[in-house]
Amino acid sequence: MAEKLVLDDDRFFDPDPTVRTIARELYAAVKDLPLVSPHGHVDPQLFAENQPFPDPAELIIIPDHYIFRMLYSQGIPLESLGVPTIDGTPVETDHRKIWQIFGEHFHLFAGTPTGVWLAHELSIVFGVKVKLTGGTAPEIYDHIQRQLQTPAFRPRALFDRFNIALLTTTDAAEATLEAHQAIRASGWHGNVIPCFRPDGVVNLAHPDWRENIAALGKVSRTNIGSYRAYIQALEERRTFFKSMGAVSTDHGVSTPYTHRLPAKEVETIFQRGLKGRASPADAEAFTAHMLMELARMSVEDGLVMQIHPGSFRSHNQAIYERFGANRGGDIPTATEYTRNLHELLNAYGNDPRFRLVLFTLDESTFSRELAPLAGHYPALRLGAPWWFHDSIEGMTRFRERVTGRAGIYNTAGFTDDTQAFPSVPARHDLARRIDANFLAGKVARHVIDPSDAREMIKALSYDLAIQTYRLSASE
Amino acid sequence: MAEKLVLDDDRFFDPDPTVRTIARELYAAVKDLPLVSPHGHVDPQLFAENQPFPDPAELIIIPDHYIFRMLYSQGIPLESLGVPTIDGTPVETDHRKIWQIFGEHFHLFAGTPTGVWLAHELSIVFGVKVKLTGGTAPEIYDHIQRQLQTPAFRPRALFDRFNIALLTTTDAAEATLEAHQAIRASGWHGNVIPCFRPDGVVNLAHPDWRENIAALGKVSRTNIGSYRAYIQALEERRTFFKSMGAVSTDHGVSTPYTHRLPAKEVETIFQRGLKGRASPADAEAFTAHMLMELARMSVEDGLVMQIHPGSFRSHNQAIYERFGANRGGDIPTATEYTRNLHELLNAYGNDPRFRLVLFTLDESTFSRELAPLAGHYPALRLGAPWWFHDSIEGMTRFRERVTGRAGIYNTAGFTDDTQAFPSVPARHDLARRIDANFLAGKVARHVIDPSDAREMIKALSYDLAIQTYRLSASE
Amino acid sequence: MAEKLVLDDDRFFDPDPTVRTIARELYAAVKDLPLVSPHGHVDPQLFAENQPFPDPAELIIIPDHYIFRMLYSQGIPLESLGVPTIDGTPVETDHRKIWQIFGEHFHLFAGTPTGVWLAHELSIVFGVKVKLTGGTAPEIYDHIQRQLQTPAFRPRALFDRFNIALLTTTDAAEATLEAHQAIRASGWHGNVIPCFRPDGVVNLAHPDWRENIAALGKVSRTNIGSYRAYIQALEERRTFFKSMGAVSTDHGVSTPYTHRLPAKEVETIFQRGLKGRASPADAEAFTAHMLMELARMSVEDGLVMQIHPGSFRSHNQAIYERFGANRGGDIPTATEYTRNLHELLNAYGNDPRFRLVLFTLDESTFSRELAPLAGHYPALRLGAPWWFHDSIEGMTRFRERVTGRAGIYNTAGFTDDTQAFPSVPARHDLARRIDANFLAGKVARHVIDPSDAREMIKALSYDLAIQTYRLSASE
Repeated sequence: MAEKLVLDDDRFFDPDPTVRTIARELYAAVKDLPLVSPHGHVDPQLFAENQPFPDPAELIIIPDHYIFRMLYSQGIPLESLGVPTIDGTPVETDHRKIWQIFGEHFHLFAGTPTGVWLAHELSIVFGVKVKLTGGTAPEIYDHIQRQLQTPAFRPRALFDRFNIALLTTTDAAEATLEAHQAIRASGWHGNVIPCFRPDGVVNLAHPDWRENIAALGKVSRTNIGSYRAYIQALEERRTFFKSMGAVSTDHGVSTPYTHRLPAKEVETIFQRGLKGRASPADAEAFTAHMLMELARMSVEDGLVMQIHPGSFRSHNQAIYERFGANRGGDIPTATEYTRNLHELLNAYGNDPRFRLVLFTLDESTFSRELAPLAGHYPALRLGAPWWFHDSIEGMTRFRERVTGRAGIYNTAGFTDDTQAFPSVPARHDLARRIDANFLAGKVARHVIDPSDAREMIKALSYDLAIQTYRLSASE
Repeated sequence: MAEKLVLDDDRFFDPDPTVRTIARELYAAVKDLPLVSPHGHVDPQLFAENQPFPDPAELIIIPDHYIFRMLYSQGIPLESLGVPTIDGTPVETDHRKIWQIFGEHFHLFAGTPTGVWLAHELSIVFGVKVKLTGGTAPEIYDHIQRQLQTPAFRPRALFDRFNIALLTTTDAAEATLEAHQAIRASGWHGNVIPCFRPDGVVNLAHPDWRENIAALGKVSRTNIGSYRAYIQALEERRTFFKSMGAVSTDHGVSTPYTHRLPAKEVETIFQRGLKGRASPADAEAFTAHMLMELARMSVEDGLVMQIHPGSFRSHNQAIYERFGANRGGDIPTATEYTRNLHELLNAYGNDPRFRLVLFTLDESTFSRELAPLAGHYPALRLGAPWWFHDSIEGMTRFRERVTGRAGIYNTAGFTDDTQAFPSVPARHDLARRIDANFLAGKVARHVIDPSDAREMIKALSYDLAIQTYRLSASE
Repeated sequence: MAEKLVLDDDRFFDPDPTVRTIARELYAAVKDLPLVSPHGHVDPQLFAENQPFPDPAELIIIPDHYIFRMLYSQGIPLESLGVPTIDGTPVETDHRKIWQIFGEHFHLFAGTPTGVWLAHELSIVFGVKVKLTGGTAPEIYDHIQRQLQTPAFRPRALFDRFNIALLTTTDAAEATLEAHQAIRASGWHGNVIPCFRPDGVVNLAHPDWRENIAALGKVSRTNIGSYRAYIQALEERRTFFKSMGAVSTDHGVSTPYTHRLPAKEVETIFQRGLKGRASPADAEAFTAHMLMELARMSVEDGLVMQIHPGSFRSHNQAIYERFGANRGGDIPTATEYTRNLHELLNAYGNDPRFRLVLFTLDESTFSRELAPLAGHYPALRLGAPWWFHDSIEGMTRFRERVTGRAGIYNTAGFTDDTQAFPSVPARHDLARRIDANFLAGKVARHVIDPSDAREMIKALSYDLAIQTYRLSASE
């Protein structure tokens, strides 16, 4: 007989009765607050079209590199999971078979956040009553499939049911934001906004940089023959993004090194880029310069700047060549902030118009560099534990390492950062539970008192995201 | 109605009843032991003059960069907090207004050690009965102000009330130690001793290095025209400091790199320094050499050598230019010990006459480098979690990461490292509670037994500081 | 009166009653499983000869650098502990005196894994009833000494009593494995296998490299005048080791840098090595190349490849000169994996024939690099917390930092890595308790359910070691 899938009401809370009782109360006060999602990767087209999700594998497995990288690590070929290839290699098209593999290996996720999110998704979003295993996989597939065909499981209906106050997408500088335009034109009330992420036109080492520049020129109706024109095009796009509701930009970089170049040098490097002759050193210098320049733009237009540094992208060349980028082969590297951000923070870190949200894949920097920086520079806020660190332990470590020196009010609230839309409520629920539990531990140890904790859990669950990203509370 | 300020007797102990009961007993055995403070930054002039502290803002806020950096990080200008400028910019002089801002933002410190120390200070030192908020700030100001005018709150009276067995100050090589001389001449029994910190005459990159050398020459009645004369002057000062009770030296360096230079090379670099032409590379090489030379002196004169490495000083140039050094803009950097200390430890690390106390701002080195080094070299002891890491979590992490390989007997006991004199007892009390709780967790898990724990809590609270700094127990 | 030595049945479990109850049940299910020891340093000669251990000091103190490094760190000369010298300096030969020093300083090990292992060894292996102190040292010495003279305490009898399914030794490439041959020839049933560790013939900077190459040539009956002959000799030895039961190789390197050199260049470097003229840069390049080549061999012959990087060997030159290598003077350094292993993982990391087990002395890499790598590459498994990190806290941190992203099934199970044979059961027991407690915490927090936990504790205690090292369960 299949084991029941039951989510305990007290899940993720400390087993100590004192802590658990306090955590339960703190969590209860925020569990129904609207979800604010200031950074993520959900496809806005979902809400523009509002079509039914095709099937469970397409919804849950195929787009989620958290899931298929773990399966791959245990020897399951990505082809057998239906992950689309870019080199024409055929992949499994029977989505029931894909789901079956997933069910048979679901035990691999025990103790991982993916396991926790999926349990929430299956139980609460889809009403599944049994644990996913090889044995139950077929019936669960059928159960979810039936629901996906009902109106209540269309994207917009889920958006409402999930109580999402704001959902931010991530969009290239050259994006036309057609899906966002369509959402607006549709008259639907859902608050879905873009975020300006110009990596593809900033990183000279990007294989498509020249094509991206061409596309940027086209959408901005600019002839990008010079660095000056390039800057103008970027500024034009930021204005456009703002007009479409954007409140932030985002920058994925190898290192957060910042250094402004002399005008002549930057033009020379830019011209080498246009000719396809930029060196790796050019790319590094140009990115360091552009972080300065993008910060300058943020000071002027008020868009909140986010930096996500330290990922060695597409580490596994064979996977990259067959499946493309973002297929689970990105690996963190040690990241330095104190020296790298020195120039940027000196130029803009004291400016009340500037807001910088820093993320990291290197937890050793939490207490060593990030909390000290955020506990000093007024422009700085620390983003939620990112990607490889969004586990129960990772979120706990973040608070334990950051709070002592930066407090909670120099942190940016939670960002779910998901591509997998149905996991949004699971991720926020987990974060709220972990933060409630963290604060409950502090109350039980008499570090803070209950009234402090009640303020703090609201800040962590809602207010800090609103304030950091300069949203209004009605959003 | 204002919320009460109550310090729970069991504060900071684990909520688990087994652990808490044991922690309470261990703490009770040491809570009244005298406070030994072998490293800190209290101004000895306080005890020489023994004048009343002027007012609560002057006492608590204005000299404490832990406090004003957090307020600054949330957009409050340092000028409005009365932090004195060096560029002539006027600052707030109404100390009630400063205190009011502090009260209104006291929630920022929730969950931080500063919050915990201040609660202790307000409640236990000053008898404040209500939580500090914007609403209660005026009455608390008045309450403290009244007390500061009474004899019981003069520095010497507090020194006695705090049960301080020894208080070490930090003094430049060229200091005349007049305050220390005045204390001795006064006949007062308080044990206040200097510590020899020659950074200003060691670091060739220090903006005032030449002025400092001149001052050193003057106090040592030496013409410092050569490296040899410089070394003689340093040795003369160390002898003087010892005669004034000093038992230790201290060295703040960017990195703990150690490397002895050939005599000719060091003279050449020194001469470039005298001419104001030393390069950054010269400064680095000279510091590495001087760490070797200062260790050699410690072997000979028995002064315990302390190294505090890894701070990027005055990271925020605008703050530095307006307010000077030590204004909250120092940020840690990753620090390497294994290779950097190789030469010094090979030269002196096996010598029973040598004692080196290492501190760090890089917690990733606790288990990777520091515990293995201290668990091998007889000369080495690990200093208490420093500065950004003196939080409840930071002190716990230190024990958790160090004890497994170095035990507790290769650690140096607690150092409060404070500039804020009235926070001394709060800091020791917190450290004793955290250590008691750490040991209680070990007892409850049957890793150590109760009799081990009773020995260990005494060592951590008192004996190790006495032994490490070669004090006698009567001090 | 002497204090009793009592091992609590619930030792090392969380004091919270919910967690403890679950931990107890999980531990009970695995505590009697056979011990699989896929990596360690026990001398196989013990089992070939099966002679009585000479005395307690010779058994417990003299061969264990965990023990004598701690005593040395507190000023006790290694000579007084009978550690043999290589420079002819006489050492203490009265083993009762050595044991007495140990007893008088046993408190130094409170809270360390060595303390925990020794308590287990004394109590469970030797039936000692009182705590070791200076006062009890003589009687405990006599008690152990009496037992060592009985047949039940001979190596093979202990091997059986310890329920060891497999014990792997570590052997140089040029080793003749005579002890292993003798064990096989003796008809004894104990499963003791070698592991191929060619560091001495791979590291050109090794002082004995040329002698080692000569020895390798001799045992492989090859004239190693060229790189090609060298590779052939290595391949021949691997075949020999496999014939003697080996399932793995091991590689101790400063850094895990991997990079294949062009054929000409590697030959040139090799020839410089043969002439004794290899530079440090040559040695580094050659090791990086050889890691690629050794991985290639593992792909072909199926031997599991282990890498143990990041130790600065023989940091204390004075100790090295008097006592030789492996005398407690090895110190970890920061280690980089993401970039260093890029080439190796790209070449072989997707190959189902390849298995790489990575260890680390740098805990900051657990969540930053190692879990992300192991959670992606199918060839990769993470080895147990190694050496300086095999403490209660270190093992807990390993699970807390790795499980969130790599799960448990990308870890390699426990390896005791011991030189001290009688500590084998203590080390496995500690690991099983810590893993049971880790899983119990997850069950109590409703992250995993009890049936998940029962599977997982078996995997961690037994199955993963069997699977990782490609053993059969009957071994």
